[in-house]
Amino acid sequence: MRIALAQINTTVGALAKNADRVIHFLEQARDQGADLVVFPELTLTGYPPLDLLDRPSFITHNLEALDRVAAATAHLPAALVGFVHREEGRVGTGLFNAAALCAEGQVKSIHCKTLLPTYDVFDERRYFDPAPEVKVAEFRGHRLGISICEDVWNDAQFWSQMARPRRYEVDPVERLAAQGMDLLINISASPFTEGKRAFKREMFAAVARRHGVPLIHVNLVGGNDSLIFDGWSNVFNRDGEIEVQARDFAESFLVWDTESQTAGEGAMEPTTGEEIETICEALTLGIRDYLGKQGFRSAIVGLSGGVDSALTCALAVRALGAQNVVGIAMPSQFSSQHSLDDAAALAQALGIEYHAVPIYPIFERYVESLKPIFQDRPFDVAEENLQARVRGNLLMAYSNKFGHIVLSTGNKSEMAVGYCTLYGDMSGGLAVLSDVPKTMVYELSNFLNREREVIPWNTIRKAPSAELRPDQFDSDSLPPYEILDPIIRAYVEEGLFVEEIVARGFEEAVVERVIRMIERSEYKRRQAAIGLKVTHRAFGYGRRMPVARGRDF
Amino acid sequence: MRIALAQINTTVGALAKNADRVIHFLEQARDQGADLVVFPELTLTGYPPLDLLDRPSFITHNLEALDRVAAATAHLPAALVGFVHREEGRVGTGLFNAAALCAEGQVKSIHCKTLLPTYDVFDERRYFDPAPEVKVAEFRGHRLGISICEDVWNDAQFWSQMARPRRYEVDPVERLAAQGMDLLINISASPFTEGKRAFKREMFAAVARRHGVPLIHVNLVGGNDSLIFDGWSNVFNRDGEIEVQARDFAESFLVWDTESQTAGEGAMEPTTGEEIETICEALTLGIRDYLGKQGFRSAIVGLSGGVDSALTCALAVRALGAQNVVGIAMPSQFSSQHSLDDAAALAQALGIEYHAVPIYPIFERYVESLKPIFQDRPFDVAEENLQARVRGNLLMAYSNKFGHIVLSTGNKSEMAVGYCTLYGDMSGGLAVLSDVPKTMVYELSNFLNREREVIPWNTIRKAPSAELRPDQFDSDSLPPYEILDPIIRAYVEEGLFVEEIVARGFEEAVVERVIRMIERSEYKRRQAAIGLKVTHRAFGYGRRMPVARGRDF
Repeated sequence: MRIALAQINTTVGALAKNADRVIHFLEQARDQGADLVVFPELTLTGYPPLDLLDRPSFITHNLEALDRVAAATAHLPAALVGFVHREEGRVGTGLFNAAALCAEGQVKSIHCKTLLPTYDVFDERRYFDPAPEVKVAEFRGHRLGISICEDVWNDAQFWSQMARPRRYEVDPVERLAAQGMDLLINISASPFTEGKRAFKREMFAAVARRHGVPLIHVNLVGGNDSLIFDGWSNVFNRDGEIEVQARDFAESFLVWDTESQTAGEGAMEPTTGEEIETICEALTLGIRDYLGKQGFRSAIVGLSGGVDSALTCALAVRALGAQNVVGIAMPSQFSSQHSLDDAAALAQALGIEYHAVPIYPIFERYVESLKPIFQDRPFDVAEENLQARVRGNLLMAYSNKFGHIVLSTGNKSEMAVGYCTLYGDMSGGLAVLSDVPKTMVYELSNFLNREREVIPWNTIRKAPSAELRPDQFDSDSLPPYEILDPIIRAYVEEGLFVEEIVARGFEEAVVERVIRMIERSEYKRRQAAIGLKVTHRAFGYGRRMPVARGRDF
Repeated sequence: MRIALAQINTTVGALAKNADRVIHFLEQARDQGADLVVFPELTLTGYPPLDLLDRPSFITHNLEALDRVAAATAHLPAALVGFVHREEGRVGTGLFNAAALCAEGQVKSIHCKTLLPTYDVFDERRYFDPAPEVKVAEFRGHRLGISICEDVWNDAQFWSQMARPRRYEVDPVERLAAQGMDLLINISASPFTEGKRAFKREMFAAVARRHGVPLIHVNLVGGNDSLIFDGWSNVFNRDGEIEVQARDFAESFLVWDTESQTAGEGAMEPTTGEEIETICEALTLGIRDYLGKQGFRSAIVGLSGGVDSALTCALAVRALGAQNVVGIAMPSQFSSQHSLDDAAALAQALGIEYHAVPIYPIFERYVESLKPIFQDRPFDVAEENLQARVRGNLLMAYSNKFGHIVLSTGNKSEMAVGYCTLYGDMSGGLAVLSDVPKTMVYELSNFLNREREVIPWNTIRKAPSAELRPDQFDSDSLPPYEILDPIIRAYVEEGLFVEEIVARGFEEAVVERVIRMIERSEYKRRQAAIGLKVTHRAFGYGRRMPVARGRDF
């Protein structure tokens, strides 16, 4: 039997378009002589469909899309396609995250997800009931163990070897194995995060070895709001070795022969190598899809001459092309000439449209208008923020006039400690770097500069400054980023608290100050633009914190 | 036995402060001769603690707070107090939403929640495991059936009478009844929404009657971010009649005697009457606690002369007192004289500090600065939004300078269809009316004007206008609110789609247009300030929608 791995880029909510894409790949599979084509999790609805699932008509339309796919298999290869299954009259939601095996014009069998992740960015218990039963599918003399994403993430042996607790009592793969399977299939929508791929590789290999069957893993590719799916679909043989591997960060279509245990051309498509390269690719795909899936083609970035805006702009050019990116420098009276020069040099190196609009005259006009109320109160955070907000307004005005989406440029370190201005530099449709710590901003910038100077070296090397008052530097308000970033990671990503972080060798006073800054900035993050998730725990949807709260523990 | 209902206002995360409050009420209970004091759900952590629960040290500190409460019962009455129970080494989260019966200086028994709501604003499956067992507590010769909130929301008979599906298979109250109980206790954190109280009354009565036991229901009171808990704790007798009732929207302490089935003074404390009055009280409490729990005392509101800002300001005065509210009018060249007059009249009627800052000179300065880029392009939404953003900036500058929190004034109808400006009128720390449809804005305004003209009648009666261009009225862009609001309710609150809404008698083209506007504005709402929830389904935390998505169904 020849099985195709169809690693496609679906769009959340685009039922008809997703079904069209499935049928398009079934046609390609027919041309390549495949018997069965495997698609990613929730193929038809896209992932994550979120509260679209609350609308009964959405579920109905998803079932109609499934009918269309099933009908197409009358004259095309069989399809294993993800959809939302509904059983009326049940206690619970009556909805299941499911896979349909479609062949000969019909839905042959339906396989529901047993393990429903409900942590971090996942809310599956909100929407779905767990599979009422687990059963092997018979297809062309094979016994297929069909599993959905999290279903393979609970192998008792593997977690025990990793010395980490299991999340669930049940292992659906064991149940499939008990019925006898000769092939394990896993359809996934597993988002990219740094370091996750090495872990997944070990885990899939362990599962394949333990049950002595090949494992076909088809993962979603594409960006959907903050989540970036990296694809990296593959076939593990019964020894846990990778036989076939799809590209990462792009659609991919591969055929594997179960008899010969071989694959045709492209069995090992090129994937990104180093971690920093995968993060770069993830951010690029995240920008492209967030804009593209909303119908935007172009972006505008405010260029301060600093490294965050330079990196954001360079990534935007990678994602959208230089002709679709506009850079605007908005110097204040506190901006140094080198900032303006660096911004212009970046725009030139990237080959993008570039403008400069000084904010001083507008800022002065605000100050004058506020004088009757402010009287002689000294310059403080009110005036600092006003400058950032004038810049935000200019970007939004440009966006409204020409239809470019504004990319905001704040990094995760700033977002964590609140070193950013609501409605100012936080303005924008997408916060490209809001999950990228400052130290990683430098790593990415160095990576982009490997072949030629894209981001001016001067931008990378100078001391970071917000330039909102004379001689201001980040180091006046914040610990050095080499200290700040590991504290943020320990607190935000690992959930550690003061004493545990201090035990890693940081000063207690610094740790407490950083935590206090993080907690006090929650209100800003609540109004932040959607950010692209690349670390284990990002701000936003996967981290839900109260704003009005006590802090006396 | 004398049981006290301690309807207290806890603060999320304030473990020590919440424990202090518990002990304070135990002392009051001792003075009033009570044997047992019942507190609301998750008393010690506050509700909802959200991802604070992910931090092991937070759970540890919550257990320490419980130890302190238990120790206090050595010389004080017994306490039934909500906390987070932890069992190490279990598969799952190992955390339970629990109640501890503390007496004689010890924790006598622990009772975990069985039914974990995971819908709308609730995420309990994200954090908790369901109760491993349900057991009746023996106390002073009584058999207490201890349940936590959702646990009483699954009575098969009741839901079948209501012809609505049950959410869960299990009914923990039946299990308690099977063990023999003579009193059912329910500790709750059930947020206020319009119409919910009548439903709860029927449901509690049905449960008490069915099992033939009195039901003591202690609900949380207070605002926690978007959720407003109304209290309205009570004792239902075995016939389903209310014997004792606490105030709503305020802390309350009542004692009930199980022997005589009577209560002392204040057995029926005054509660609000009409629905519109409860909504008014809810919003008032929501403002007061959102500010107070963050340490803010004062607020600033931009006054346009329109009804939304007038109502927001009037509610702020109810919540904070006139001396803690500032109103600012920010007229543009398109503002009518009556707008300015109405804003001033409102400020005078409310007795608040009032300023006027014209935005025209600042707006003009923007236009001039943008001219080299915009050239001769006509005035459009870019300039309209700029005016709104200048106002937002002025409010934020004032807030930064003087420490008042900005209350934004947009209503639910505007938020739904996107008739609002990001970083403009959407600026603020709390969106007071973002769950109040425009038609309800009028109802509330009329309600506040019953005794005297607080909101100028002229403000209520004139046609709504954003005044961002000459002769602009809401009715130019939107269907009349009497048509718009029911469509929004059907789509957002009931989850209906085009055909079902059309079946209610609305024009198909209008329904489609409204739905399109709602869907296209998701990106704005994602960056909105926290709003106070008063309807069945509010924007924000309880409604999770993708931004980048297809719309082809």
